[in-house]
Amino acid sequence: MEKPQFITSIGEMPDAEFEAGLEPSSRHGADLRFHGVVRDLEEGRPILGIDYSAYRPMADRELEAIVHAMLAEQPEHRVAIHHRTGFVAAGEASLLIRVQTAHSAAAFEICREYLRRIKATVPVWKRPVFVED
Amino acid sequence: MEKPQFITSIGEMPDAEFEAGLEPSSRHGADLRFHGVVRDLEEGRPILGIDYSAYRPMADRELEAIVHAMLAEQPEHRVAIHHRTGFVAAGEASLLIRVQTAHSAAAFEICREYLRRIKATVPVWKRPVFVED
Repeated sequence: MEKPQFITSIGEMPDAEFEAGLEPSSRHGADLRFHGVVRDLEEGRPILGIDYSAYRPMADRELEAIVHAMLAEQPEHRVAIHHRTGFVAAGEASLLIRVQTAHSAAAFEICREYLRRIKATVPVWKRPVFVED
Repeated sequence: MEKPQFITSIGEMPDAEFEAGLEPSSRHGADLRFHGVVRDLEEGRPILGIDYSAYRPMADRELEAIVHAMLAEQPEHRVAIHHRTGFVAAGEASLLIRVQTAHSAAAFEICREYLRRIKATVPVWKRPVFVED
């Protein structure tokens, strides 16, 4: 049975939980996972984490639009993207982009391009929670 | 306490087990993991998996030499690499390269360069196990 070619998700689920539901593939030799991790400093000041919020209908639509455009440009990949919302503690991942391709070079290019487009256009807002807040 | 900047491993441990022992970091905003997965076809013929073997002293030394060279060229990253030996079934990963950097662009470049160098110089041999074997 053909597996779905893409999954997108925006919400409070931790990345590890989302990732645990992803399936392996014996048709894709390259499986690349980018985790965007919350750092413990924001402009030099220590933070506890980042509070993410999204205008969901627009963010979901924009994320799906990115995936459809990418699959049209590069049909031979599978992708799973999860962007967390709510509070994400420093050291945890707020974004996961997983790309599977037959060969490795494409995986690096495609994953990096997803990251670029997501950062550029998906409306997710971040509010650092400083240690002294 | 400072975490080790690199870990290299060659052996029969499954990738998932090796990966479970890796630590998160709140100083690195980018955590990129490349899994090299065994595909179910080899030159168009179905395979059950690949049997990997390594001349360990030389492979260990070569892998460490790659890491030392990369850390000299790009000091600001952490890396963990595991290459499996023995039989790896189709759909499972035989190689994991995890790179952590402060920012994302470097993670993609460094991870891809590790992959290129490992493929080029680490002496690991592969024998496909065909379905009809």
